[in-house]
Amino acid sequence: MRVGVLGGGQLGRMLALAGYPLGIEFRFFDPNAGAPVGQIGQLIAADYGDHAALERFLEGVDVVTYEFESIPVSTVRFVAERMKVFPPVKALATAQDRLLEKQLFDDLNIPTPPFAAVDQIQDLQRAAARIGLPVVLKTRRMGYDGKGQAVIRDAASLDAAWQQLAGSPLLVEKYVEFQHELSVIGVRDTTGREVFYPPIENVHREGILRKSTAPAPSVTPELATLAIEYCRRLMDRLAYVGVLALELFSVDGELFANEMAPRVHNSGHWTIEGAETSQFENHLRAVLSLPLGVTTQRGNSVMFNIIGHIPPVERIMAVEGAHLHLYGKAPTEKRKVGHVTLVAQTSAGLERGSIELGLALGLGSNDA
Amino acid sequence: MRVGVLGGGQLGRMLALAGYPLGIEFRFFDPNAGAPVGQIGQLIAADYGDHAALERFLEGVDVVTYEFESIPVSTVRFVAERMKVFPPVKALATAQDRLLEKQLFDDLNIPTPPFAAVDQIQDLQRAAARIGLPVVLKTRRMGYDGKGQAVIRDAASLDAAWQQLAGSPLLVEKYVEFQHELSVIGVRDTTGREVFYPPIENVHREGILRKSTAPAPSVTPELATLAIEYCRRLMDRLAYVGVLALELFSVDGELFANEMAPRVHNSGHWTIEGAETSQFENHLRAVLSLPLGVTTQRGNSVMFNIIGHIPPVERIMAVEGAHLHLYGKAPTEKRKVGHVTLVAQTSAGLERGSIELGLALGLGSNDA
Repeated sequence: MRVGVLGGGQLGRMLALAGYPLGIEFRFFDPNAGAPVGQIGQLIAADYGDHAALERFLEGVDVVTYEFESIPVSTVRFVAERMKVFPPVKALATAQDRLLEKQLFDDLNIPTPPFAAVDQIQDLQRAAARIGLPVVLKTRRMGYDGKGQAVIRDAASLDAAWQQLAGSPLLVEKYVEFQHELSVIGVRDTTGREVFYPPIENVHREGILRKSTAPAPSVTPELATLAIEYCRRLMDRLAYVGVLALELFSVDGELFANEMAPRVHNSGHWTIEGAETSQFENHLRAVLSLPLGVTTQRGNSVMFNIIGHIPPVERIMAVEGAHLHLYGKAPTEKRKVGHVTLVAQTSAGLERGSIELGLALGLGSNDA
Repeated sequence: MRVGVLGGGQLGRMLALAGYPLGIEFRFFDPNAGAPVGQIGQLIAADYGDHAALERFLEGVDVVTYEFESIPVSTVRFVAERMKVFPPVKALATAQDRLLEKQLFDDLNIPTPPFAAVDQIQDLQRAAARIGLPVVLKTRRMGYDGKGQAVIRDAASLDAAWQQLAGSPLLVEKYVEFQHELSVIGVRDTTGREVFYPPIENVHREGILRKSTAPAPSVTPELATLAIEYCRRLMDRLAYVGVLALELFSVDGELFANEMAPRVHNSGHWTIEGAETSQFENHLRAVLSLPLGVTTQRGNSVMFNIIGHIPPVERIMAVEGAHLHLYGKAPTEKRKVGHVTLVAQTSAGLERGSIELGLALGLGSNDA
């Protein structure tokens, strides 16, 4: 079995590390010849528009998946005309456009903060009046990790926000004062069978995920069931195959969908040690039509991202039960270069370990 | 950090898969250009006596280890004159010679079946009379997986056994009617710190390991402490660094050392899923002078080797909690091509899962 993976970052690298024990071979495609997967697998480095290179990439491959959600849909369509591609192109196209994504949520009765498309300043003014400030103006496409967004807290800032982002297709939505950011990770196979990991609680700072805790301490069993039900609706509608992550806000005991990612997800990295089958292995099982693995948890897990620079690894590895994952990337500011997961049998044990690990990682109290 | 590994089989492959997440890079050396590590890492394929190739292998490497115990000691000495090598050469040289190994056990007051060196037929006759039949005649060197051995049950068979093995340096030892075969896996770092996994119970057939269960169900806490103490004595005497496996027989509540392996060991594969830190990661931590990881178990584990041919992977993966590991080797008779580990929270759960997994693997009742 050989899986072709579009994108060669850390998610691709972790897919390969999960797949090698299953006897799966990999070929990666990434415009960057120095992509992290190059150290551990076969990499074809070419532009996503290079059809000859894509043809080479497909030779001898059994199925194609992707690990990066900003891959041009045209690339995935080109591949899909020649080869099975999972998750389906439609999921990728929807996730790449915040407006289509919110409309899908609406259509499936998944609550989402009020939103509107913005093509001109008048759209923004009208929507802000209807929704009520504060609102967030966002590009419909390609924003991630907090880029391409402007929060508007008063009417006087509408113009400045418009000036900042105009030129791209935009949407505006209610700025949500959430208590918690959550995510749900589901897996669906080619026969429609589905498994889910328990909801995860996430902490972002500067738009970048810092910490994930699973299961989410703030989530009641009822809310967990509801979050999973939302993820299930999305997967069923999209005839989804693979891992889907749905990000949600929790506000006064209610859930609002924020966005979805049609790929393995940073908030699911804890599953490598914290669940019986990791999200990476289950994604591969799904796209290869193999039986899905159970998602049973091994305890309570916390994951910290390593961002910008790598603290002394000896200190991290001296924390009992800390599992270090480095991605083979050159550290630069705001870049995710690794993560650490800790699994404990009790939430008290997890809290103790988190404090120790936070010190080893040199985190401030905001992130630990 | 780059680790050079002499030998490129499945043990090297699993070392690399454990090391990549820690940011460790690998270079392998193996005479076979088709060695399993070639699929996932950099392989220098050359004879162990090729000094120029060994020099190339050492360029940019921080430490060297080995994953195969029949590597010529002269090769390891050549490397050790140029670079740190762990485990120490002395451990390898001792493990390669059954007589030196038994003498070391004796010297450390680790009980072992009575033995004697055999250089001529008279030595064998005298030793058989002193020890008492049945005995096993063995080559001192290079025997593994049941090769190079002859069991002598009556005096009439002495000559035939001698004829079969004469020409190699030999030893003879008491044939032990053991109740259980056990192993202990210890890890020692460059500062002398040591951690141990609990004793493991092993089932061999035709001299090949079929099944390992951890912790060993037949072992009392007292015997477990004793087994670990024997492993500790060996590591301390050898100023050992890395993973050491000690194989023992359990006979009427007593332990007898059989042999040791100065490397990660087949009976420790369950630690990948069944322990907080795997033997592979701990071996790397040890040889790189990083803090050792805790060996806490995640439950009860059983591991089955996949030997000779690979059963349908769909069936194996459909067993709840079964973790498949394939080595990328072409299946041939009696060849270890993979293994499967199952972890359960209770011994009853492990038994149920083992039966199901045995069926999926197509094992007879001898092995399941």
